[in-house]
Formats: sequence, structure tokens, C-alpha cells
Amino acid sequence: MFDPDALVLGVDPGVSRCGYGLVRRVGSKAGQAARMDAVAYGVLRTSPQEELPIRLATLSAELQCLIDDYRPTALAVERVLFQVNTRTAMSVGQASGLALALAGRAGIPVVHYSPNEVKLAVAGDGAADKGEVQRMVARLLALAEPPEPPDAADALALALCHWWRAPVRAAVGEAGTSTRLADAIVAAVAREEARR
Amino acid sequence: MFDPDALVLGVDPGVSRCGYGLVRRVGSKAGQAARMDAVAYGVLRTSPQEELPIRLATLSAELQCLIDDYRPTALAVERVLFQVNTRTAMSVGQASGLALALAGRAGIPVVHYSPNEVKLAVAGDGAADKGEVQRMVARLLALAEPPEPPDAADALALALCHWWRAPVRAAVGEAGTSTRLADAIVAAVAREEARR
Repeated sequence: MFDPDALVLGVDPGVSRCGYGLVRRVGSKAGQAARMDAVAYGVLRTSPQEELPIRLATLSAELQCLIDDYRPTALAVERVLFQVNTRTAMSVGQASGLALALAGRAGIPVVHYSPNEVKLAVAGDGAADKGEVQRMVARLLALAEPPEPPDAADALALALCHWWRAPVRAAVGEAGTSTRLADAIVAAVAREEARR
Repeated sequence: MFDPDALVLGVDPGVSRCGYGLVRRVGSKAGQAARMDAVAYGVLRTSPQEELPIRLATLSAELQCLIDDYRPTALAVERVLFQVNTRTAMSVGQASGLALALAGRAGIPVVHYSPNEVKLAVAGDGAADKGEVQRMVARLLALAEPPEPPDAADALALALCHWWRAPVRAAVGEAGTSTRLADAIVAAVAREEARR
């Protein structure tokens, strides 16, 4: 079951720039529309001047700080598509491996969403560009400005995506024939939300 | 400079099976041929029945135990080639990212070798198969039997490769025009060692 008091940590993994965004639901009484709140967001950066093991150790320590400080109840991570090249996959794998291991140790459940699913959820369009995602994230979270850089917006979008997807996933099951239906519901919900 | 009292930890990273091998040099007096000694080797396994974050947390904890127990002075990790597919690269990236981050935190220098370099170093042939690598590793380390599974042999081979390559790398520099010469020296040394 999906906990309505959850605090979802979205992570857009990368070694140079690792986006993060913490999203919770506020004012959600029965029959009342919930509002989403960005508790914190930003980008963890590591210097290309440092050697890779030092960069990964730094990233791991900073992700651990985020987990310790905010105690998220779920981690939403971007699923890497098979179109990306090997070098990118290795690098994203290294960063995501750290986040996943920390979540595993802390007992935080992890979910993956593809960039397509995330864009569909927040912008109602699986092919939305970075700017559209940033604008929609700002709108949905009532931020004064689009979150910068795009990595932070992507992380918030991942967390938002989980907020919409999790109840649907719980209702129809994670796999199987209902995926298209779930996708359609999510897209419709996202469009509805955007219109408000 | 390369420390002759070093203990090299070779790691063949993988989520399901992560090979490790610790190699030191013994009996190395001036003018006397050094013998290589396998201090410990094996495979860290995680269950495919467990979820990925749990598997990565387990792997990270076990790698940390190896580092705490043996305090290696260098970590040699396999370099992933660009021929592998994205799924493999992600998975290897996740496992190697954990090893690298732990080494970074412990201040252990990390070196990478391609499978080709490793095979060339231990078997004198960059295209040697798994069985040849296992047999040559057993011979070079005076083991009663070829190390099983191949992941453990590959990890020992990585550590052995570093033992031969490190002095050459230190002498000629890591990059630049001398790489072919260094490769030739390493291959010659490996063949010499194998004949003894």
C-alpha cells in the first residue's frame, strides 16, 4: 500500500551532477485535492578535477546525508534506457548503484521510472523537453521559478511521478496487462493537474 | 612510486557475482625473483531473489569487510569495454561504483585494466580464454588447483596484472607514447614468469 504521508526522494543519478528532489503531499483531506510540496531540491556536484573514487565517495556521503536528514519513505530513480551509450550507462550505473545501496541499507523501497513515464506524468507528454518539464514542475509544486538546473527539476519530476503512479501501481499491480491503462490514467491525471 | 610491500585487491565487479583476489609479493630480496602469493580470493554473491537495492547494500557491506580485514594498498578493477551492452554496463557500473566509493573513502588508490591487458599480463595473450586465465593464475600463484569460479580467477589476474604493470606505469608514465613499449615489456615478463 502507498502511504499518503510519504516523503518521496527523487534522484536523477549522475557522477558530475546528481539531481535530487523531496516531495510530500500536503492538505490532503478526504475528497479534497492534494497539493504537492517541494521540501528540498538541488544538485549534488562532484569535481571532474578529482579522481573518480573520491568523487563517488563524496557523492555517497552526500546522498547519505540527504537520507539521514529527511528520512524519505520512498526513493524514485530514473530507469536508464537501452538507447544510451555504454559510457553513459556505466557512469549512471555507478551513481545509481550508490543511491540504491544506501536505500537498501536504510530499508527504503526503491521504484524506477523511465524518462518517458516521468515526462508523461508531469507534462502529459512523453516527449516533453527539459524546459517544459522545468515549467510544469514549478507549476505543480507552486514554485516561484522553474527549478534550476534541469537535473533538480528532473529529480522533482521523478518524485511527482511516483506520487501519481504509486496508487495506480498499487491498484493494478506493477506488471502485466494493465500497464497501458495505468499509463493512460496517469497521463490524464497529469493533464488534469496541469489545468488547475 | 609502487610500494613493494603492497597488497593488491583485484575486483571483477558484478552484482550477481563479484570476484575478489588479494595478492602480495613474498621473498623479494634484491636480485632475487619475487613470488606472488594469493592471500585470499573468492566471489561475493547476491541472490537474484532479493531486490536490487538489498543486493547492492549487501555487496557494499561485504566489500567494506574485505577492505577492513585486509587493508589493501591498491585496488585493481576491470575496465569495461565499450562493446558490452547497456544492461551489462549499468550492472557492472553499479557494482564497480560501490567498490570505487569505498576505496575512495578509505584512501586506497584505484587502477583500471582492460580484460585484454589482464589476459596479456597473466597469459601472454590478450585473447586467452577463461580456462587459460584460470590455469595461468594457478601456476603464477602456486595454487594446487585453478581458482573457481572464473570470477575469482579474473580478480586474482587483475591483482597480478597490477603487480607487473605498476612498476612499468611508474617508470614510463601512465599515458603517452610508451604504452606499446610497456605492453611489450609486460607481455614478455608474463611469458618469462610462466616458463619458470
